[in-house]
This record gives sequence, C-alpha cells and structure tokens, in this order.
Amino acid sequence: MSDKIKEISIAEFFEKNRHLLGYENQTKALLTVVKEGMENSLDACEEAGILPEIHVSLKEISPDRFKIIIEDNGPGITASKLPYAFAKFLVGSKFYRLRQSRGIQGIGIHGAVLYSQLTTGKPIKITSSTGKSIDEFQLMIDVTKNEPKIISHESHRNPEKKHGIKVEFEAEGKYIERQQSILEYLKQTAIANSFANIIFDGPNGKVEFERGVQELPKQPKEIKPHPHGVEVGILRRMLANTDKKNVVLFLRTGFSRVGKGTAEQICKLAKVDAGKKPKDLAHEEIDRLHKTMQLVKLIAPPTDCLSPLTEHLIVEGLKKEIDAEFFVAIERSPSVYRGYPFQVSVGLAYGGKIPENETCKLYRFANKVPLLYHQAGCAITESVIETDWRRYGLSQSSGNMPVGPLAILVHIASVWVPFTSEGKQAIANYPDIMKEIKLALQDAGRKLSKFVSQRRRTRESQLRKELFEKYIPELAESLEKLTDKQKQKIIEELEKIIKKGGLVGKTEDGSQEKS
Amino acid sequence: MSDKIKEISIAEFFEKNRHLLGYENQTKALLTVVKEGMENSLDACEEAGILPEIHVSLKEISPDRFKIIIEDNGPGITASKLPYAFAKFLVGSKFYRLRQSRGIQGIGIHGAVLYSQLTTGKPIKITSSTGKSIDEFQLMIDVTKNEPKIISHESHRNPEKKHGIKVEFEAEGKYIERQQSILEYLKQTAIANSFANIIFDGPNGKVEFERGVQELPKQPKEIKPHPHGVEVGILRRMLANTDKKNVVLFLRTGFSRVGKGTAEQICKLAKVDAGKKPKDLAHEEIDRLHKTMQLVKLIAPPTDCLSPLTEHLIVEGLKKEIDAEFFVAIERSPSVYRGYPFQVSVGLAYGGKIPENETCKLYRFANKVPLLYHQAGCAITESVIETDWRRYGLSQSSGNMPVGPLAILVHIASVWVPFTSEGKQAIANYPDIMKEIKLALQDAGRKLSKFVSQRRRTRESQLRKELFEKYIPELAESLEKLTDKQKQKIIEELEKIIKKGGLVGKTEDGSQEKS
Repeated sequence: MSDKIKEISIAEFFEKNRHLLGYENQTKALLTVVKEGMENSLDACEEAGILPEIHVSLKEISPDRFKIIIEDNGPGITASKLPYAFAKFLVGSKFYRLRQSRGIQGIGIHGAVLYSQLTTGKPIKITSSTGKSIDEFQLMIDVTKNEPKIISHESHRNPEKKHGIKVEFEAEGKYIERQQSILEYLKQTAIANSFANIIFDGPNGKVEFERGVQELPKQPKEIKPHPHGVEVGILRRMLANTDKKNVVLFLRTGFSRVGKGTAEQICKLAKVDAGKKPKDLAHEEIDRLHKTMQLVKLIAPPTDCLSPLTEHLIVEGLKKEIDAEFFVAIERSPSVYRGYPFQVSVGLAYGGKIPENETCKLYRFANKVPLLYHQAGCAITESVIETDWRRYGLSQSSGNMPVGPLAILVHIASVWVPFTSEGKQAIANYPDIMKEIKLALQDAGRKLSKFVSQRRRTRESQLRKELFEKYIPELAESLEKLTDKQKQKIIEELEKIIKKGGLVGKTEDGSQEKS
Repeated sequence: MSDKIKEISIAEFFEKNRHLLGYENQTKALLTVVKEGMENSLDACEEAGILPEIHVSLKEISPDRFKIIIEDNGPGITASKLPYAFAKFLVGSKFYRLRQSRGIQGIGIHGAVLYSQLTTGKPIKITSSTGKSIDEFQLMIDVTKNEPKIISHESHRNPEKKHGIKVEFEAEGKYIERQQSILEYLKQTAIANSFANIIFDGPNGKVEFERGVQELPKQPKEIKPHPHGVEVGILRRMLANTDKKNVVLFLRTGFSRVGKGTAEQICKLAKVDAGKKPKDLAHEEIDRLHKTMQLVKLIAPPTDCLSPLTEHLIVEGLKKEIDAEFFVAIERSPSVYRGYPFQVSVGLAYGGKIPENETCKLYRFANKVPLLYHQAGCAITESVIETDWRRYGLSQSSGNMPVGPLAILVHIASVWVPFTSEGKQAIANYPDIMKEIKLALQDAGRKLSKFVSQRRRTRESQLRKELFEKYIPELAESLEKLTDKQKQKIIEELEKIIKKGGLVGKTEDGSQEKS
C-alpha cells in the first residue's frame, strides 16, 4: 500500500461508478439525463421567479443512441460560470445553503455530461441566454482532472433579450413508455409542479403537460440549522470558525429558533460561561453544550424554508391522475433530522377504478421530484410497509405493501434530502424521517378507515334493502292475513319505510337489527 | 446561480451524506466502522502474504458511545503515507489497478474516521508497525479542505520488529446481536475467509472464529481491461494518453486477450490504419475501432486476476453454517461487464433443519465481504427473484423470493464491483452481471431439482409402503379365499415383495402403478 498511494479524481470515481448516478442500464440512463436537465431547469426558473416553460425533445439518431434536448425559459447562466456549472463535479451554488431545492449536490447535470461523453465520445452543446448575451458552448469534462474542457465557445448579441438555457446531449439509451419511463416521470413531475408547462417531443409524438396553476409557489427562505440533531463534530467546526464574540451570540446567530433567553439558558444548563469566546471552549465544554442543545425544549423550525406539497395540491394532483371515490391528504408540521428541517405530506386515493386486489400503487416524491427507481430500498416504502393498514380496512401480509383499491402519495420537503445514492432515487431510513412518514400515513389512514367503513355500511345496507324489497310482496301477504288490511296498502307502507331508511338504515350498529 | 457558485469538498459532501457510507443509524454505523476496519486489515494481510490474525474489540464507554479497536498483523503503513490513507478521501492505492480486493475506492476507512469525529468530536488513534519503526498517530479529517489533520505523532523504535496496524475509534453506536449485527458480519466473513483467524471481544464476551484453512488463497494478478464492454469515452482517453507508436501496439499492450493477430484483425475490420499513431485517430475512426472491439470474438478474460469462492469453499462454508441434507455449488467461468472481468459462484443448501415454509435465506458476498444491508435493492436479490424456482421444486409467488427449506449463497468476485452506494452494501443491476448470476442459479437449481424429486420419490414411496403394509392382513384374507393358500404364508410373501421394493418401488413413474 505504501508505495502506490494516489489521489483519485471525483470525476473518474463517478465514471467508474456511473451506476451511482443512475446510469447502469440504457433505459434508466436516458431517463436520468432527462431528469437531471428537468430538475436544473425547474430550480432555475423557480428561483428566478419565472413560470417554467420547459421543452424536452428526444430523437433516436441511430440504434440505442439518442439526441436529448432540454430547453427552459429560466434566467440563463453567465458565460464565466457556465463551464463549471456543467462540467466540474462538486461545484454548485446550492450545497452550502439551507434552502429547499431539487438539485443541491453539484453532481446531477455533471453526471449527464459524463455519461454522454462516455458512451458517445461527444461533447454537450449549451446555449445560454442571460438577457444580455447569447453564449454557445461545446463542453466536455476532463475526467482525470475533474475540470471543464471547453471545445468551443461563441458569444452573440441578444437584441431580443431572450433568456433561458438549451442543453443538447448525445447519449446511448433505450426508450420505453411503460412504468419507469420518461413519460411517467414527466406526468408525475407535472402533478407535483402544476405551475410548470412541460412539452415533451418524444419518439412517438408530442405530449403537453399543461400548467394547472398560474402562480409560482412561495419562495422557500434560506435558514440556519436547528439545534436539535446537530452533530458535535459540526458544532465544533462552527465554534472554531465563528467570528462572534461570545457563546450566547454564537448560538443566537448560528441557529434557528434560538433567542437570547434560550441561548443563555443553554449555557447555564451546560455549565458553560455565556461570555466565553467560542474558540476557547474546552472539549468537555463543547460536549456539554452539545448535549444541552439536544435536550432543551425548542419551537419546531420555521416553515418558510420549505415548500411542501400542500393538502390541496396533493388532492388536486391525485384527482387529475386517479379515478377514485375518496381522497384525503395530510400535511405534517415541519420536523428536524440532524438539524435539517423537513416536512412530510401524504395523500391517499381510494376506491373507484383502482383495482381491488392488487398491491397499492405508491407515488414517492422528494422536493417535488418524482422518485421512480429503488422503491424497495426507500424509507418511504419501508414506512408504508411498517404501517398497519389492516386497521384501516385493507389487507396486508406482514413485511409487504398493503393490498386493496388504494394509491398512496408521499412527499418529503427538506433543505437536505438524504438520498441513498447520488442518483437521488430513494430516501435513506433516518429514524426521525420514518417516524414522521408513519405518523402522516396513520393520520390519513384513520380518515380513510372512516370512509371505508361508511362505504361498507352503505353497501351492506343497500344489499339488505334490496333483499327486503324482494320479500315485500310475500311479507305483505302474511300481514294482510294477520291485520285484515289490503295487501297493496301494506306494500306501499313498507316501501315508504324503506325509503325513509327507518327499517334498514340503522341495522348495522346492531341495536336495531331486524331480520 | 451565477453569483454563488462554489467548490464543494468531498469530505463535506460525505459528512452531509453520511448515510451514503452506511452511517444513517447507530446500529448500522457501529457495524460499518468494524466492517471498514476488517476489510482494510484483510486486504493488507492478503496482499503481503500474511495469514491474517485480527482482533476486534468493542466496549460501551457511555450510553450509545463505543470504543472500537481493530488490530491486525499486516505489514503496517509507513508514517509518511499513513495520514493520507486514513484521513483524506479519494486517496488510495487500489483505485487505478484492475485487481480484486475488498476495498478499492479510497473511501471506506476514511468514512469511519469522519463518522467518529462527527459524533464524538474525537480523533482516531493509530499505531502502525512496519517492522522498522512504530508510529503512533492521532488523526482527524479537516473536513472543509479534505486534508488530514495530525493531532499528534510519535515515532518509537521497534526492536522486536513487530508489524501490523491498530486503529482505535470512539463513536456513537448501538450494539445488537440479532440479524444485521457485528456478530453475523464476522460469522459470514469467517465463512468466506476461512484462512483468517478472527477474535471478537464484544460487550457480551469473547468469540473466536478460528482459521479453517492454513494457506492463503492464490494472489490475484493485476490485469488490463478486456476489450468487450469498454466505453468509447474511456477508449478515447486511452488513445490520447498512450505512448505507443501505433494502433496495433496500443491494442496489444493496453488490453487483455488481444495478441498481434487480433489487434491487426480489429484494425482491418474497423478500417483503421494499423500503423497510425493512436493520438492521430479521427473521431469516426475511434468510433469504428470501438464498435469492432465489441464485436470481435475474444477469449474470456484470464481468471488469475480473480480470487473467487470455489465450489469447495462454498460447500464447506455452508456446511459449517447450516444443518441441511443437500449441498451444491456452481462456479461460473469469468465474464466481462464494461471491460471489467467478474466471476459468479453460487451455493445452495436444502432440507434438514432449514424451515419448510419460510422465505429462503440469502447470503450475499462481494469479493469475500458479506453484504448485510440493502438486500431489497441488490442485483443478487433481483436475480434470485427473477429465477423460476418452481421448476426446481420450491414454491414462489411472482416478484417474490422462493419459499422452502433452502439457503442461497451468491458470491461475486470482480476487479471492480459496482456497489449501489459508497457504503458497499448492494450490487447495481448491470444486465451482464444479472445474467451470470441467473445462469449460475439455474445450474445449481437443476442439480437441486434432481435431489428434490429424488427426495419426493423416496418419501412418496415410503408413504405407499406404509399404506400397503397397513392393508396386508386384509389383502391376505381375500387372497387366502381366492388361492387356498394359508393367510400367514401370503402375508410373508407380500412382506418379502415390499422389502425388495418390487411392488411399490417403481410406482412413481406410472408404468407399474398398482392400487
């Protein structure tokens, strides 16, 4: 080991591990290229306050080789930054801030560039219009150095003040239209981003996902970490790097939900001198401070750093997609894992045309991005499985998804979504996150169970009514003999009673059962 | 986006994404620390030709906080390289060579260091003896720079010429002894590495996994990539960087299984001038060369770069672990994905004390490392599920693992195992790899099915025999009347026939069925 030790370029690491980014087979790879482009475009538009207008075009240019074009009406990127934003891994604007966005890691779109050049040897083409100039680039990644390689760059005037980015990839791929397909991805994207207009020009024709809402969601705000769940290693680094004069000031300005009073209380409980310089704290003092920060009671993090899917949006989204009888959505209050605020919302659709005897369909979203792959390894799936759906009127065998006419949607909004891999297809099972998902599902489940038993009652009552009606003539005949009333009159009386629901409407609760 | 673009340190990336490395909860985190240490030690010993002697010690020093010590008798690391080998991500000796080993990415042990300092704020302690000096380090990672931070370093004389490394972590964790536990990990490690002696000194006492084999496996050799599956992007870079004078020489020296004749044939078929300088090839020439390299018939890669689990080792390993009636193992020949050689072997254990009506237990290994987590998202699991086990006498519902008294072991040996995340817990579903796993399972399944139907035949025959014996007295009585022979004689005759198997032994095939 001693002799050959060597630094490894992160680009080369991802080239060898392209499956980490979602490129292990041609079908998934094509979807991933589209997905990374879409996420970049939606983020750019939303941040700039522009209603997104996104065109995706896909053409097979030779067997298993596609030209993929993604074009948006966002703000564009200035020419000096553009090569880094596309062709150098671990460069980005979103990593160091705590604010909800789709991309955050500085890896996604770079992966698409890498995959293109790996499978076709060709650079990507980018046209960026910032309103000032129009810049055309041909870019590759210098893999051994993890640096952008500019193949060509031309700058033009922009008299019409156009803005937006157009990216053109040539890459290997396979196009399908079933299940984990680009079409399904775009459909689900449209559900969670109803403010976007998306046009897909695919191998089998054009599909438009029209804008449903004419307003952008409120901009999520950048926030500070919440003291709950912050690790001691991070706290140490923050203490070492702060320019604040004393510990109270450090706590007040470094964390959300910590005012002067709380900061002083933390210091007191931790037996740390409130006026001490943060850099001067001893190892044991930091440990005590950290423990106290975890224990002290604090308000949940502010919600304005998150842009969750609201109950209304979820129900509307599900209604657009699914023909069901009953819809319910639950939006939890924000919670915290590792100091990062997150918020779970769930939706259920039940009955109608959803198949009665199949495994429930699960729609997973994180920061408004649909997750189509790795369902089995996702904290959302695990939470659904660990929820006892038999309580809510469905059937379920242990360790499995529930079975019944149900569709489940789960959305997680967070300033930092813990994906299980850089390909961002599933969520890691942090205990705090799973707890919130399960609570939301249980809440929704209880509402569902009311509907399910109501429906069962109504159905049974209906059956009973039908049965009773069938026997009215016979019953009337017997009553005629007993009471000397006219049969026809008795029938009319009985039918009146049925209509009022007096005779059978209450049978279900047992107390008025009549046979 | 334009203004705040910034480089991200890979250490900070993994700190935020610690679940990528296997640290999303305390139970798994503790296992991961042990696992990374073990893998490093086993690799070091095996490479140096030393029979491994590894001590793992685990002590709870306060609630949810452990001291973890891993000590080996390997060659040690020289003081100048040591800080990089432990405390700078993406530094390693194994990334750039094609040779089978457990670790390869320059991430594993660094992750354990990062997790320790994140959860306890403490450095790790390392004692490295190279035979010359003994060096003691206290190390941390400077996360924002991804550089080692040496807290202390002392060098001592080594008169006894000791060698080996002792690493001491202090980290948060939770200790369990069921299922995905350290004990289970060590037990499975011992199955696949029977040449190692492993002593575990855990919270509930000492366990020794004794060395079963007194010899190290043959050292795998470093090889060159195989032309099949090499991507065009990689080929382009190889062509640009080679110092070989012409294309034929480049092909012969750059790839395995390409001799002079094959190299010339490739050039001819690709219409590329064999004498041309590699750097001078035009884009289209490279494309043609690449396509031809994929199509030309070649010998499979050499096996000496791989150190698979042999059929013998698998069967012995399974026997040690499982009380079953039938064992079978299959070792496939090496195959290639993306130019990387890999080799699959599988083992089955059937019957005996394995529960009849439970889901089959699956043991997954990659380069002799047991994979305990992410079973659902692993190509091995997927391959098992996609194999039709009903053909081999088990029950299985579509999309699920088979049910029956069966344990399945799958091992993948490769110079580059495509793990689904840096935590190395599951294998990505590259089509070439899944195909090989399924072929191996089918092979083993066919052998199993012979045993299963044999066993069924024997059992049925036994049942029939018992049934027949029950009716002998009655039958004898009837025969007595018909034949005038004495009943007792007839009974004796009938029993003789049964013993010979004449009457019922052949009933199963239908032709001699008698009721």
